[in-house]
Amino acid sequence: MNLILLSPDDFIDPKTRVRLCDHRYVHVRDIHRAGVGDELKVGLIGGRVGAGKITSLTEGALEMDVRFDQDPPPALAVTLILALPRPNILKRSLQTASAMGVKRIFLVNSARVEKSFWLSPVLRPERVREQMVLGLEQAVDTILPEVELRPLFKPFVEDELAGLIRGTQALAAHPESPTPCPRSVNQPVTLLIGPEGGLIPYEVEKLTALGFTPVHLGKRVLRVDTAVPALLARLF
Amino acid sequence: MNLILLSPDDFIDPKTRVRLCDHRYVHVRDIHRAGVGDELKVGLIGGRVGAGKITSLTEGALEMDVRFDQDPPPALAVTLILALPRPNILKRSLQTASAMGVKRIFLVNSARVEKSFWLSPVLRPERVREQMVLGLEQAVDTILPEVELRPLFKPFVEDELAGLIRGTQALAAHPESPTPCPRSVNQPVTLLIGPEGGLIPYEVEKLTALGFTPVHLGKRVLRVDTAVPALLARLF
Repeated sequence: MNLILLSPDDFIDPKTRVRLCDHRYVHVRDIHRAGVGDELKVGLIGGRVGAGKITSLTEGALEMDVRFDQDPPPALAVTLILALPRPNILKRSLQTASAMGVKRIFLVNSARVEKSFWLSPVLRPERVREQMVLGLEQAVDTILPEVELRPLFKPFVEDELAGLIRGTQALAAHPESPTPCPRSVNQPVTLLIGPEGGLIPYEVEKLTALGFTPVHLGKRVLRVDTAVPALLARLF
Repeated sequence: MNLILLSPDDFIDPKTRVRLCDHRYVHVRDIHRAGVGDELKVGLIGGRVGAGKITSLTEGALEMDVRFDQDPPPALAVTLILALPRPNILKRSLQTASAMGVKRIFLVNSARVEKSFWLSPVLRPERVREQMVLGLEQAVDTILPEVELRPLFKPFVEDELAGLIRGTQALAAHPESPTPCPRSVNQPVTLLIGPEGGLIPYEVEKLTALGFTPVHLGKRVLRVDTAVPALLARLF
């Protein structure tokens, strides 16, 4: 936790003093081992980054005087579309995407997505948010990504995707493609990553017809939670 | 598991028939849901890749006739030096590095490595191997990385590191550096990744004096298991 992420509920004095008694308090006490007078990096969710000076640290709660004087780091100009991965891989992928600066994520269906994945409690908004907060805390960011679920592939592709990719370089990670993933692009990207087992030919065709370029990252098939940081680091 | 990794012990008939009754058997039965006559991708640990045709699948064991006709994918020209991360991060970092084609890994001490990490059972050779096998199975590779432990920073840097980095581009991931990590390098790399909390100035100085260039990956501080794939994908 490189940043203590604050929400309006944490304030006991408008704008300057917060009181924490949840896992953030425990973290500051046990991991940072901070004391009264110490300064910690803080950020206001959806807002700016700054410092919090601990004014009180008792059994069960800490209070800090906070000020916000910096913008969060810039976002990546990418829309990430993931074929819904298994729950534990989804958790890590959300965390990583959020840490790396992705601000818009679609979780979509695809032929090789196990139907049961759509029933996972990890997809509940509060659980999705939890993972993304971990990513923001890691990367000292405050802006939560927007996550949207699209449990039907065909209407998503036919009705929505053409609009989404307008003005962007649309890439579909597909290990069988002959085209290597471009490096250091200078325009917004829509990046689609298929499921374990890959996209089926029908899906590749639909995407290509829309304007997606299938691209590969080498001969090695990577798990989605590895492909996400690898592709983002290569593109940006 | 995109590859069933075989070892000499699995062979019941020299060179052509294997018998599996461990987790690989369970995986083939329950995840691949394969049956007699089906072909699966197999690899001989340290050797070539090929196909195995299931000849028998009973309660408790499967047998396959195997042939090996392809080389494993090329390795990355990199030596990876990690300040020993927390055990769960270490596991994922080993898995990812192994999947991406790293073949030489040093786990080293550094001022901000928690001493207790050196006592983790995850460092036992069989546990380290377990993680790397997962990476190879994912990436359809057969060549295990060599992993070496260096629980003392100073002698490692003073006695060994100059030799290791000879003929390579030596880079130390250091978020505070003004130099961005290079892209698509065409020479072997020695890549050092510091601990959570970063390298201390003394360590940066020692490394710089040896010929390391401190490099950053942007403003965001990434966790080691995210930094590993991000840096490797950017460098190669």
